[in-house]
This record gives sequence, C-alpha cells and structure tokens, in this order.
Amino acid sequence: MTMTAAQIAAALADIVGSDGVVSDPGKMGAWLNEPRKRFHQNAAAVVMPASVAAVQAVMRWANENRVGIIPQGGNTGLVGAQVPLSGQEVILSLQKLDNIRSIDTAAGVMTAEAGVILENAHKAAEAKGAMFPLWLASQGSARIGGVLSSNAGGVNVLAYGNARELTMGVEAVLADGRLYQGLNALKKDNTGYDLKDLLVGAEGTLGIITAASLKLYPLPEDYETAIVNVASPEAALDLFQLMRQRAGSRLNAFELIPWIGLDIQLRHGMLDADPTASASPWYALIELTRMAGTEPGALQSALEAAFEEALISDAVVAESLSDRTRMWAFREQMSECQSREGASIKHDVSVPIAAVPALIAEGSAAAEKLSPGIRPVPFGHMGDGNIHFNFSMPVGADPKAFMAQYDEAMHAVIYEVVLRHGGSVSAEHGIGQLKVGLLKQVKDPVALEMMGAIKTALDPKGILNPGKMLG
Amino acid sequence: MTMTAAQIAAALADIVGSDGVVSDPGKMGAWLNEPRKRFHQNAAAVVMPASVAAVQAVMRWANENRVGIIPQGGNTGLVGAQVPLSGQEVILSLQKLDNIRSIDTAAGVMTAEAGVILENAHKAAEAKGAMFPLWLASQGSARIGGVLSSNAGGVNVLAYGNARELTMGVEAVLADGRLYQGLNALKKDNTGYDLKDLLVGAEGTLGIITAASLKLYPLPEDYETAIVNVASPEAALDLFQLMRQRAGSRLNAFELIPWIGLDIQLRHGMLDADPTASASPWYALIELTRMAGTEPGALQSALEAAFEEALISDAVVAESLSDRTRMWAFREQMSECQSREGASIKHDVSVPIAAVPALIAEGSAAAEKLSPGIRPVPFGHMGDGNIHFNFSMPVGADPKAFMAQYDEAMHAVIYEVVLRHGGSVSAEHGIGQLKVGLLKQVKDPVALEMMGAIKTALDPKGILNPGKMLG
Repeated sequence: MTMTAAQIAAALADIVGSDGVVSDPGKMGAWLNEPRKRFHQNAAAVVMPASVAAVQAVMRWANENRVGIIPQGGNTGLVGAQVPLSGQEVILSLQKLDNIRSIDTAAGVMTAEAGVILENAHKAAEAKGAMFPLWLASQGSARIGGVLSSNAGGVNVLAYGNARELTMGVEAVLADGRLYQGLNALKKDNTGYDLKDLLVGAEGTLGIITAASLKLYPLPEDYETAIVNVASPEAALDLFQLMRQRAGSRLNAFELIPWIGLDIQLRHGMLDADPTASASPWYALIELTRMAGTEPGALQSALEAAFEEALISDAVVAESLSDRTRMWAFREQMSECQSREGASIKHDVSVPIAAVPALIAEGSAAAEKLSPGIRPVPFGHMGDGNIHFNFSMPVGADPKAFMAQYDEAMHAVIYEVVLRHGGSVSAEHGIGQLKVGLLKQVKDPVALEMMGAIKTALDPKGILNPGKMLG
Repeated sequence: MTMTAAQIAAALADIVGSDGVVSDPGKMGAWLNEPRKRFHQNAAAVVMPASVAAVQAVMRWANENRVGIIPQGGNTGLVGAQVPLSGQEVILSLQKLDNIRSIDTAAGVMTAEAGVILENAHKAAEAKGAMFPLWLASQGSARIGGVLSSNAGGVNVLAYGNARELTMGVEAVLADGRLYQGLNALKKDNTGYDLKDLLVGAEGTLGIITAASLKLYPLPEDYETAIVNVASPEAALDLFQLMRQRAGSRLNAFELIPWIGLDIQLRHGMLDADPTASASPWYALIELTRMAGTEPGALQSALEAAFEEALISDAVVAESLSDRTRMWAFREQMSECQSREGASIKHDVSVPIAAVPALIAEGSAAAEKLSPGIRPVPFGHMGDGNIHFNFSMPVGADPKAFMAQYDEAMHAVIYEVVLRHGGSVSAEHGIGQLKVGLLKQVKDPVALEMMGAIKTALDPKGILNPGKMLG
C-alpha cells in the first residue's frame, strides 16, 4: 500500500497546488544539500504550503496515508534533522510562511511565522527600535521555525538565553493536522503544562511550528568590546567570574579562543589586521552592553581590576565600530578557518562552566595520545560552558586518511571526557540523524522512555520527522 | 478492592517505617490546612519518605494498588494542588528530603532536594557569596519541590525569570517508581525533549520532583530602590519602558501600587512611616541592582530623565537599608492589608505588558458596574504584565453577603477582560483544584488534548495528584 513518489506528488498538488510541490529529484538540491554534506538521501517530494491551513491539510493527508513528513526551515541544521533518512519522506518547507504578523515594542513581542529568515526578524525589530537578540553565523538563511525546533544558541546566550528562553509561545500543527494555538505575549502564565518548551527543541518530531511569539529587548545604546590575553583556560574562568561579579547580566559575550586560531587566520589572510594586543596562548573576547543614559568605561575599569589581580596580561578595547567588527570576525571565522588547514574533527559539547579548563586539558591530552601531532582548536562560549572542541589534522597529514582513521575514535575519546564531567554531547546542534545512536548510549534511560512515551502520545503513527532524535 | 485507610497506613509503614506515616486524621492539620482555608478534605494518610529510594518504593506500591498520591512541599500553594480532593488520596510530603546536596559557585549551580525550604536555599547560597534570586512572601515555609511544581514567580521575575527559568535540571520519581535523572549544571544541552520544563509547573501530576539543580547568580554589591509618583497606569507603562531602555536587565523590580494601598496601611498602623514622597493616585516601586565596582546613581539619573519627560511628579530614593525595607514592606503587605478592610475578591492574572492600563481601567469599570462602591486594589508586577487584580468590599458592606453575591460573578467579569486582552487567568498560582473548571473553559482545546495525552502517557493509571489541573 506504499504510495509511489508520483502518487505522493499528485496528492500534494491537489492540496497546495502544483506550484507548491517539487517532484523532480534533480530540482531538490536546495532542500537536500545540507551545510556539511554528510547526508545524501532523496525525498519523495518537497511541499511548500503557503498558509497554516495548508500545513494542516497536508498533515491530515499524511497522517491518513502514513507518509513521513520532514519539516524544514532554512536547511542550515548541522545534524541532518531537516533532510531525509529513508528517502521515502516528504520535505515540508515552511519557506512560504514568511510573514511577520505583528511587532509590539511596548509589549516586547514579535509574532513571526516559521519561514521568516532570522536576519529579517532582526531587521524588523530594529526598524521599530527593538532587538531580537539571537545571532547565528547562519542567520542570513536560517528560518525561525528551524531556529526554534533546534533550540539554537549563538554568541549572546549568556545575556539573553537560547531560542527557548527567547520564545513566549508557539503555534504548531500536530501530526493529525490539529492546530495548537499557543501564541501569546505573556511573561507569566501558569495554566497547564509547558507545551511551548516541549515543541521548541523537538526537531519537528512532535509538531510543526508555524509561528512563534518572540521576546524583544530594548536596543543597547552601545557595546564595549575587548580582546584580552589570558595565560590559560583557568585564568579565563577566573576572569569570567570577575566579569560576572562586576557586570552581571550586562556581560553579553565571553568567548575563548586559542592562539592557533589567530595564527591560522593571519597566515591565510583572513583578517585585515591583528585584532589582539599581543601574542598570547589564549584570548578572551569580552563584550558588555551599555544602556541609554549611562557612561562608557565599565569594561575598561573591570579590565584594570583584572590586571591588578594578574588575570590578564594585555588587552585591547575596541575604539571604533571597525575594531569591534574585526574582533567579532576573528571569533566568527574560527570554524571556517580550520578548513584552510585540511581536515578537522568537530565536537559541539558543553560541561558545567567550572569544568571547562579540565575538559580542554584532558581532552587535548587524550587526543594527542590517540593521534600524535593533532592540533586542538577548542573555542567558543566559555560563559555557557559550551566549547566547540575541534581538532585540525597534524601538519602535512592526508585529510582523507586522517578522517578515516581518527574521526570516530576521536569522538569516543572526547565524549568520554565530556560525560565524566557531567557534560552534554550536543550543546547546540541537536541530535537529528547524526547523533541518534550516541544519544541512546549516553542519555538517562528513563529520559529516553519518557521521550518515547510522549512521542507516541502526540504522533501515534510516527509520521513526524521519522527516525530523527529518537531513532 | 479499594483499600481502607488503615490498610493504606499499614502498607506505607511497611515501606518507610511507622515514624514516616501519619494515619490519625486529627494529627494531619499541618498537611491539610492550606493558607486560604478553601479546601477541607481529609487524606487517607500522610507519608514522609526520607530518601529518594523510599519515594520510589511508595510510588511502586501506589501504582500497583492504584492509590492516588499528592506530592506536597511546604503546603503554601493557593489553588489547592497540594491538598486532597476526594479524601482517598495519600499526601506524600517531601519534607524529610531537605539536603542541599552541593553548591558550586564557580559553576553557578546549587543542587537542592525537594524538601529544602526556600529561605534555607537563599541562606546556603549567600553563605557562599552567591544568590538564588527567587523571593516569595511564603519563602520561610515554601519548599523547593513545591516552588518548582507551581513554577513560582515573585518580585524579581523581571530580571531573573520564574522558577522554570531558574532551574537547570530536575530529578523526579515517575508514577510507577522509575527515577528520571535529569540533574545537570549545563547552560546548554540539546539532547532531547525538554523534560525538565514539562515537570516544572506540572503540579505533581506527571512526576514527583525529588531534587533540582538551581542557577546561582553573583550577589549584587547593592540595590537602588525608589518609590515614585505616577499619575496613571499609562504613565507607569511609559516609565517602565524608559527604565528598561536605561537599565536593561539591571531593572530588578517594577511594582505598581494604587493609593488605596498606602491609605489602608497607614490607617491600620501597618507602616512605621510613610514610604512615599507625597500623595499620588499611583506609585511605582522601582529597584535596580548595582554590581561590584560600579558607581551608584543610575536610578537617580534615570528618574531625573523621567521628571523631564513628565512621567513622574515626585519620588523618594531609599537612602538606607531601613528605607528600602519599609518600601518593600509597603509592597509586600498589599495582600494582607486588604483583610483589614473586610472581604476581598482576588484575581491572579496577566496580560501583555502594554495592555495593563486597559486591563485596570476596563476591569475597574466593569466591577463598579456590577457592585457599586466596590474598591479596586490592582497591584503587583507591572513589568511582567502580572497584576493581582483584587477588590475590597464597599465600605460598611457585610463581608459574607458581599462574597456570596459577588465572588463568582466578579471572576467572570474580570476574566472576560483578561481574555479579551490575550491574558492568562492564572499568572502565578496555577490551577490545582480551584481553577480546573475555568481552565476547561478558557484554554485552547488542542492544548488540553495534548496535556491529556501526555498525562496518560506518563501516568497511565492516573495516580499522580488525581483530579488536579486536568480534572
């Protein structure tokens, strides 16, 4: 009774019109080719409903016919949640649902549909003098629905939280086409279970988010940004505590970067000038917000205190927008710059903040033992305990041979250290199809049972993003 | 096959020992008598397990024998979630699970068991130079498990969020005795569904929280506190926006109080001095945090800007700890002071912040129409859109006759206004048994269906806090 791809495409065209369906596999590249080119399965079809009612109609049909549906936003996810697994699924793109339904700065809320591109949400908020404070490298193509379904993070989680904490409510279509109407603009609402947070971060396995009410914040008057030299991750941790004591929630970002990141970027001409004060084994990029009517200088004075306590040895504070832009480019190019040095093995992990130095020390030592000459490039959101613990191949190694020999083995080594420190094997990017097996190994078994029970309760036929997250 | 109370008590004594069971109804007052004396049902027994394993054993027994279990913390809830409904239930008090398992200020986390009294959690954090920023009027008796199960709020939600946002992870015993081990100290963890937030705020209907990892914050150096005169809720809203623009997340509290609250407290001798600058129809209590190494004066300078924009007409800034204490006493006595003026009808509601002035105007007018001479006393967390919209009876009215005639009718009138503005009929206190019927009327029906499906999936025999929240 399985439908053919042609039958599926015809049925979908009946629901949304033929201009809302792509049935030729040769034309599906935009929806199939994900950023890291790890997953290579076809889809039965791509459907692009142009209204919430059309999403509901597609789901009613899919549920009746037991057709697997993969919700997709901007196709920027890194774990394969948004692309096919079996090849029999339909990709349901939310790209045509791209209206910003309302912005109310007095209430501090923007209601955006799932297909709104993150950068467009930023611009719409700024045009009204407000800010939606979630910044990602992929913000020019990532869409709100995917950002929420993956509970995206980014560089300002420290001050504003991740996507979950920036969402007040969601509207979602369930597996059988029912519409959950959970949009609201309330800071407090204790009327029942927290369905919003269940749908956020569920990778489309429990429902399809069609719109969300997002928190807006006042635009800061300005930022104070610096790159400081720290001797070690331990010193960076002490510096982080000092900054939190003095700046509280004005501390907008605290990013750790190793010397090798600067070296690579300068050697490959990726920076127009050195954004640091001087050579150092480690750098921290620190940023404070400055609100209207307050004097600048808080960062400078905190750094002076840090000098006195010998936590930092040198520093440069941005004196212009171009200084700040260069500092952030240095940070944001950290992932990309590794590709200039051949193959690299990547881990998106978190540990309790206090365990970051041990994670880096023990992980680097274990990696060197496994693969002598390997170059650790741990960097990222120290203030969240979230380190992108990456490794570049030894100088002169063969990329393919390196990956074949060490990719899987290195994951095992690093995850062992992470788990020993009570950490997470997916801090930001989620589970998707990439980490389904890993999740089963490391997650509390009762948590997995609870997840399975909830999945079955809300999607009894298992048609929503089948095989993702839960396997 | 229903067990008698004596059989239940005997079985429980076999599990936890006879000193962990109260079977004499005459000795159950501490667990049955809740703050507002609205609910008057007996319990089959009270059981006080002294370990997580004992909680598991009780739940295995209860699930096998289909005995309803009501988890209870400090018995301070206001909607009857923590007391019996049928009289056949067993109250499972977490009071003996009162260890603080660990405090790690570098990681910013405290792991506290469910029976820890909130005030003891405050003291333990402060002894380590940190802060757990959740303050309630009932903090001397409220326990962490209940605080989380009701997703409690309080006066500093504006800066730090409610209980949900202050919780990193929970440990919980499920209906059949399985243990969900979700404690962690991670700021970011995208490995599966958000089970923590499902258990927080579920009023013990999905699992029994036995411990939680709670976020700690640096202690501010000091606070800047003021009471300012505002002409109207509209002016208070404009002032709130100005304060957010200038103070960002340093804005710790923004509480609205009507003149009648001052009048009542002064007439009844509840304040040793007038905490305000001068007479005004409305007051706002505003507080900013000041972090270490920063200069005082931010509140003063913001208030000068507010004067220039004619948003406030007078103000007094606290110059001493006793000034600050008196200002907060004025705010915290708002609920209690109403009892000095006879009967009152109370509503714990929220609306989008921008709708607070309309809520107060329309709700007050509708109340006056229903009950001429009634005295509106709307006060509370303006910055969260959360107003305790209370009404004192007309001067000289008979309390019993007033309540009999107007209590239910007034609820209908106020909830109509709240819902018309997209608000919540239970902003802070939850559903329990008090608002089960109301929830069915006002909640999105698909949300209720999802809640029911999740409840059945996790507690198929319906033994966890039966009849609460979902009915």
